[in-house]
Amino acid sequence: MHSYQIGVLGATGAVGQKFIRLLEDHPWFTATKLGASKRSAGKKYKHAVHWVEKTELPAEVADIEVSECQSAEFQDVDFVFSGLDSSVAGDIEKEFAEAGIPVISNAKNYRMHDQVPLLVPEVNPEHAELIKKQTFSSDGSGWIVTNPNCVSVPLSMSLKPLDDAFGIDSLVVTSMQSVSGAGYPGVPSLDIVANVVPYIGGEEDKVETESTKLLGQVKGDTTEFRDFTIQATAVRVPTIEGHLLSVAIKLKNPPADIEEAREAFTDWDNPIADLDLPSSPKQPIRLYEENRYPQPRLHADREGGMQTAIGRLRKGNLMDLGYVTMAHNTIRGAAGGAILNAELLAAKGYFG
Amino acid sequence: MHSYQIGVLGATGAVGQKFIRLLEDHPWFTATKLGASKRSAGKKYKHAVHWVEKTELPAEVADIEVSECQSAEFQDVDFVFSGLDSSVAGDIEKEFAEAGIPVISNAKNYRMHDQVPLLVPEVNPEHAELIKKQTFSSDGSGWIVTNPNCVSVPLSMSLKPLDDAFGIDSLVVTSMQSVSGAGYPGVPSLDIVANVVPYIGGEEDKVETESTKLLGQVKGDTTEFRDFTIQATAVRVPTIEGHLLSVAIKLKNPPADIEEAREAFTDWDNPIADLDLPSSPKQPIRLYEENRYPQPRLHADREGGMQTAIGRLRKGNLMDLGYVTMAHNTIRGAAGGAILNAELLAAKGYFG
Amino acid sequence: MHSYQIGVLGATGAVGQKFIRLLEDHPWFTATKLGASKRSAGKKYKHAVHWVEKTELPAEVADIEVSECQSAEFQDVDFVFSGLDSSVAGDIEKEFAEAGIPVISNAKNYRMHDQVPLLVPEVNPEHAELIKKQTFSSDGSGWIVTNPNCVSVPLSMSLKPLDDAFGIDSLVVTSMQSVSGAGYPGVPSLDIVANVVPYIGGEEDKVETESTKLLGQVKGDTTEFRDFTIQATAVRVPTIEGHLLSVAIKLKNPPADIEEAREAFTDWDNPIADLDLPSSPKQPIRLYEENRYPQPRLHADREGGMQTAIGRLRKGNLMDLGYVTMAHNTIRGAAGGAILNAELLAAKGYFG
Amino acid sequence: MHSYQIGVLGATGAVGQKFIRLLEDHPWFTATKLGASKRSAGKKYKHAVHWVEKTELPAEVADIEVSECQSAEFQDVDFVFSGLDSSVAGDIEKEFAEAGIPVISNAKNYRMHDQVPLLVPEVNPEHAELIKKQTFSSDGSGWIVTNPNCVSVPLSMSLKPLDDAFGIDSLVVTSMQSVSGAGYPGVPSLDIVANVVPYIGGEEDKVETESTKLLGQVKGDTTEFRDFTIQATAVRVPTIEGHLLSVAIKLKNPPADIEEAREAFTDWDNPIADLDLPSSPKQPIRLYEENRYPQPRLHADREGGMQTAIGRLRKGNLMDLGYVTMAHNTIRGAAGGAILNAELLAAKGYFG
Repeated sequence: MHSYQIGVLGATGAVGQKFIRLLEDHPWFTATKLGASKRSAGKKYKHAVHWVEKTELPAEVADIEVSECQSAEFQDVDFVFSGLDSSVAGDIEKEFAEAGIPVISNAKNYRMHDQVPLLVPEVNPEHAELIKKQTFSSDGSGWIVTNPNCVSVPLSMSLKPLDDAFGIDSLVVTSMQSVSGAGYPGVPSLDIVANVVPYIGGEEDKVETESTKLLGQVKGDTTEFRDFTIQATAVRVPTIEGHLLSVAIKLKNPPADIEEAREAFTDWDNPIADLDLPSSPKQPIRLYEENRYPQPRLHADREGGMQTAIGRLRKGNLMDLGYVTMAHNTIRGAAGGAILNAELLAAKGYFG
Repeated sequence: MHSYQIGVLGATGAVGQKFIRLLEDHPWFTATKLGASKRSAGKKYKHAVHWVEKTELPAEVADIEVSECQSAEFQDVDFVFSGLDSSVAGDIEKEFAEAGIPVISNAKNYRMHDQVPLLVPEVNPEHAELIKKQTFSSDGSGWIVTNPNCVSVPLSMSLKPLDDAFGIDSLVVTSMQSVSGAGYPGVPSLDIVANVVPYIGGEEDKVETESTKLLGQVKGDTTEFRDFTIQATAVRVPTIEGHLLSVAIKLKNPPADIEEAREAFTDWDNPIADLDLPSSPKQPIRLYEENRYPQPRLHADREGGMQTAIGRLRKGNLMDLGYVTMAHNTIRGAAGGAILNAELLAAKGYFG
Repeated sequence: MHSYQIGVLGATGAVGQKFIRLLEDHPWFTATKLGASKRSAGKKYKHAVHWVEKTELPAEVADIEVSECQSAEFQDVDFVFSGLDSSVAGDIEKEFAEAGIPVISNAKNYRMHDQVPLLVPEVNPEHAELIKKQTFSSDGSGWIVTNPNCVSVPLSMSLKPLDDAFGIDSLVVTSMQSVSGAGYPGVPSLDIVANVVPYIGGEEDKVETESTKLLGQVKGDTTEFRDFTIQATAVRVPTIEGHLLSVAIKLKNPPADIEEAREAFTDWDNPIADLDLPSSPKQPIRLYEENRYPQPRLHADREGGMQTAIGRLRKGNLMDLGYVTMAHNTIRGAAGGAILNAELLAAKGYFG
Repeated sequence: MHSYQIGVLGATGAVGQKFIRLLEDHPWFTATKLGASKRSAGKKYKHAVHWVEKTELPAEVADIEVSECQSAEFQDVDFVFSGLDSSVAGDIEKEFAEAGIPVISNAKNYRMHDQVPLLVPEVNPEHAELIKKQTFSSDGSGWIVTNPNCVSVPLSMSLKPLDDAFGIDSLVVTSMQSVSGAGYPGVPSLDIVANVVPYIGGEEDKVETESTKLLGQVKGDTTEFRDFTIQATAVRVPTIEGHLLSVAIKLKNPPADIEEAREAFTDWDNPIADLDLPSSPKQPIRLYEENRYPQPRLHADREGGMQTAIGRLRKGNLMDLGYVTMAHNTIRGAAGGAILNAELLAAKGYFG
């Protein structure tokens, strides 16, 4: 059985709170150290945090004294989860890795780093081996693993079965993203109540690049990106949780009919199914037949927010297929995805 | 000066109410006859209608007795606007045209009819000439003109300048449509509050075909469609008014740079500007430079809801350009568009 | 151990679906018969229902053939839950009771009936004894028990501790009610997105009367109502689940200070705690100290949607106290409340 | 004819922007000076402001260079409107008044000041005379006039006719307030989308006190407050504009029937009707007979956002009457109310 003491960096933020909530009663991981800004350091967590989760603040962390995000404070943890804002994640995560503390990060800073795996367990579990090539710490004991942007998760999850079956040529995607994706306080209500904002800063670049690394191949001490092209538009809509993507895709060897396309999803084998990871959804990809599904409000929480939904699968009259895909952006697309990464790495023995 | 007595078919519905509101104080058109279902016939309009507009029910129509939608009841009008539901519009509009009463329709039923112009004054005013070829009535006094679907309006408005400048090859569009597009009662709140529904029945077909007729050419007694391809996804979002479209487009002779693309919109000449029609916006197309614009809640009402907005214009890394476009779906995309059509036809002398 | 076969009347409606969802995996009750309108009768449930719950349609009911709501079809059940619309509940529930089938109803029709208990287990469990006085069936085997309106539930739950401690004189309440309270399709989105509707038909009468029966006393074969006065205003707000009430209350023997008022809630003893009913919340009343709580979106689901929340408890400068209270309107305020009633009656042996 | 050059303090904030928008094309007032924080000072207004209004930023102010809020910079204006945040309004407004510049303020800081009139032209125009008693400036040339909180405006507008007819004894009010009331960025969308927040800091005190000053009497150099009692609960709801109040009221001499209550509103005489002020609504109070009206989204904009709506007027079974009232919180309840105050004072010759 696995049993790890872990730390959470950025524990008072929106993503940090989601880590805390998802780690409550986790069979393998126990949060024993919480890191936040100098402003919060020294306070009990329950006094430092503006709790925005639906569930109660877990009793076992309520009285933990918040530390600053310095490796010296986290010597007794096996690894840390990072929910840090990208404005500070770069330096802090590096300092932890150099100090020999593995960092399972949700931040964007190292996603494109040569030696850092950008990991979605069901998509590219083998990329984990890049960890061994990392040179952050002299003895290799400290390293960084990242999970992708909240849009790249359902996107790559939907692309993997199609790529395996037909080969991806190119795609156009419009992501309709919920307000929780901007954290707290995040999007002002005056901007989004009964409205759509057609721009999310920095988002489209991530959506256009991350999936080409996720579906790429580890070669030596780096990752060879794929050469397919993604054109993305990211907009904000007044939903709470669940990013919904509208995708039009061209394939190298298109399916003969829509039934064959459907089977690419329904027959797809989850490469980590046998590992039986605690946060792993029984059905990682759910194909909805009803035209009106999936919907963020109804389906984002399916399988604890870890399932990726596909719907509206149909022949396209320009590109080969059209479909929508959705995943819970703060669970599967952030904290939950990072936890699943840690479970994979624990199962593979990366934490020694 | 123009002065016409007009009738409104489907006057108690959502589109009908918008006709009534927009015709209040119209300089050319006066609503003197209101048609609705048998259930409403005989009642005063103010008693038959469940008024959902923000403005007061106009006093001048409040006491008009509602008639059934039969041409015999509308002998004293110069023409009728039709806001009828497609389930009944086919037979009723035909009956009016055969009886010698011109029909300016918002319904979909005759949009694809060989002899019927699908008209957006700024896009294809010359298509009006098809009217002369119509054979609904023996003497040609009765005819039908239609305006396109509420998504096809901003789409065709945005495609026209690009087509003139660069030639359209193909495009992918995702339309994020407001709840008013479904009429009243329309979308149940349980389906759409804090949610997105990834399907709107019948919508995508219209979006994929109408623009190819709108940008086509009248040849003899029919319209030659254009051969560019549109792949559409239509979703419902919790906005009130204004459909926002995300577009990725491939062009025959792409612009050298984004500035040249911008000029295609800013230098475009409105072909009906000189007609000075009452409902014609001074600036039919508004190009927003701010990334966060246009937004349905803030900009759908610009120029009385008759302006089409363009934003996020940028180079695409798969197709040549990406942009968003938006128009007020129940004004520019429905009643207001039909009224502008009638104004064009009045100015051109089609009402004799 | 209890084990009952039960039927659900109105199984395809919004309340009926909630019954189906809450009865999935229920330790005592198994849904074996589903009743709906003639239109649905004969179809498999999965084909007759427009499922609007977040969870999957339970496999064990999916293929049950829907019956018409006639007692002859329900001979093999121990009792039925009724989620029928009030337009038909009166006759149907009577027919079942007369035929010897107990009816646990969420409909309003018999709430004010002399012999019918209006029941909230934590508020007036002793009212169940009225069942013995019922004369619907000759041998007393058939009877009706009702749960109150979705606003009266949190209202009576909050009034009970105050009444026990200080005695209720009178109160003013404004209930801000979620859209799920109107069922499906229910409230048109055009009426409620970014809006408030200051009226809910028939609601205020129920709010003003039901709590005076709930806190009343069974005398002989009827219930003596209490004489305190409630003035209610019911408005619709764009929330999904959870009715929030703003209450100003005058008490017979006001508390000396706010701390004493707080203790009335925190020290209150749940009269059915010892019965350990499956759907009974550990903490039926939760007093929130944070000014910004409770909130429908964050807290309606607490304890499976069965907990009543109190917040903003403070001295009033006109009436003695002010507070807000909230409960999940379709669980605690409807199907869940009815199920808890049935559990109480099962524990007390009313189903023989 | 009146013609004044005016300044706007806090011009880049949400209220300041509303001042700018409402003053565009104002027949009497021309904005020539714009004041904001040190951070904005020196920039052109169009570059300093994050414009959130639906209409275009008015061309005539776009290039005005923003000044710091110091009287020395505003020597050439006849008076200033203050949309300053209360955190800075106290000192700045005092400095302007002492320097001989009249301040028409929307801030709360001086509303309860003995010598400062809290003014709603239709409610207490005679309170303007208090200006003559002010001692901010040695020669009386500088003074301050305030408009009430956005809830107190519709509340006092609805209380005035009832007080004139029946005398107010006491009332309970729950105000359901729109997100625009919190300014920009204001309420985080995560807090309010599909939710209600049962608390607005500092709001209830204002609602409970301001109306007793507004309906009070000027005696000598101060205002004698009225002695009726208000118990208020202020909650935030996801509406954009328009605060809706639910009121239960006890009267000294209650009307015999509801018709008499109705007449109190319909027969009420607007004391400033004869002044014909530019921003004065033709019908300051609109009584809606339809149960479902008024609604924020549909009716807040009536008469340019300056009309107060009353609805649901009915007999109460505890207090004498129940009704709802609503006004546009950022127009009638803020900038528009301040402008109407200035118009009244201009008409009365207070600006010399």
